[in-house]
Amino acid sequence: MGTIIEGITVTKLKIIASVPGDVMHAMKTGEPGFSGFGEAYFSTIKKGVVKGWKRHSAMTLNIVVPSGIIRFVIYDDRQHSSTKNKYFEITLSPTNYHRLTVQPGLWMAFEGIDEGLNMLLNIGSIKHDPQEAENCPVESGKIKYPRIQNAF
Amino acid sequence: MGTIIEGITVTKLKIIASVPGDVMHAMKTGEPGFSGFGEAYFSTIKKGVVKGWKRHSAMTLNIVVPSGIIRFVIYDDRQHSSTKNKYFEITLSPTNYHRLTVQPGLWMAFEGIDEGLNMLLNIGSIKHDPQEAENCPVESGKIKYPRIQNAF
Repeated sequence: MGTIIEGITVTKLKIIASVPGDVMHAMKTGEPGFSGFGEAYFSTIKKGVVKGWKRHSAMTLNIVVPSGIIRFVIYDDRQHSSTKNKYFEITLSPTNYHRLTVQPGLWMAFEGIDEGLNMLLNIGSIKHDPQEAENCPVESGKIKYPRIQNAF
Repeated sequence: MGTIIEGITVTKLKIIASVPGDVMHAMKTGEPGFSGFGEAYFSTIKKGVVKGWKRHSAMTLNIVVPSGIIRFVIYDDRQHSSTKNKYFEITLSPTNYHRLTVQPGLWMAFEGIDEGLNMLLNIGSIKHDPQEAENCPVESGKIKYPRIQNAF
């Protein structure tokens, strides 16, 4: 089982099923993880491909997966964290429909799992700013990318 | 050609193509149409099916279609509007990737066009509140649902 890392929140979200087409909640002001609205964007990821690692120094991420299946791995290397050196994994999809909140300071990578459209929405607490984001490509091997199965 | 109705803004959005998967902009604070963040949710709509008409008295809608093809029709019956009784139509998709901003007071209906997942994201300026939304089912025929082709 994965450890829930300090600074990560997982919030179950509602899907309101209806014959014409479902409504899927993403985020409301005042809900767990909400700390302001800066920017919303989608990121898509092909099957078997990984984006990451990336670490934000200021943006809180609020991630929802409305299409496909995406596996997220989060790594904590913060000096004074009680969960230092721990990994957390969660696989999100419309079937396992949760919002993943990631506080700044944590490394995240994610992988497309489904054949179809794997898409996340991130509602960031601030606007995208390359100055506050740091990259460490998975290929570099500097942070290992574990293959835990469904830790959450 | 459709008339752009008072209170509607259409803003071209960027798609940043990349081999692992594209990034698709949705909304930033300060951009055209942004008037606060209340709630973000997805609505899906099956091919050939229409949701609407619906009119909000307080929520400004900011709509993006990251998957599929959705045809929107907006109708203005506001007493003192310079575009009273006009219809506006736009078909959005990742190929015609724009943000549609709809001010309160306008009627909107939308139809799924694609075989696959037709999905919109709405970034509403306030939280969902049934008290500020009014429904007038398309089936009632009270507001006609025109079949204009690609007016925008």
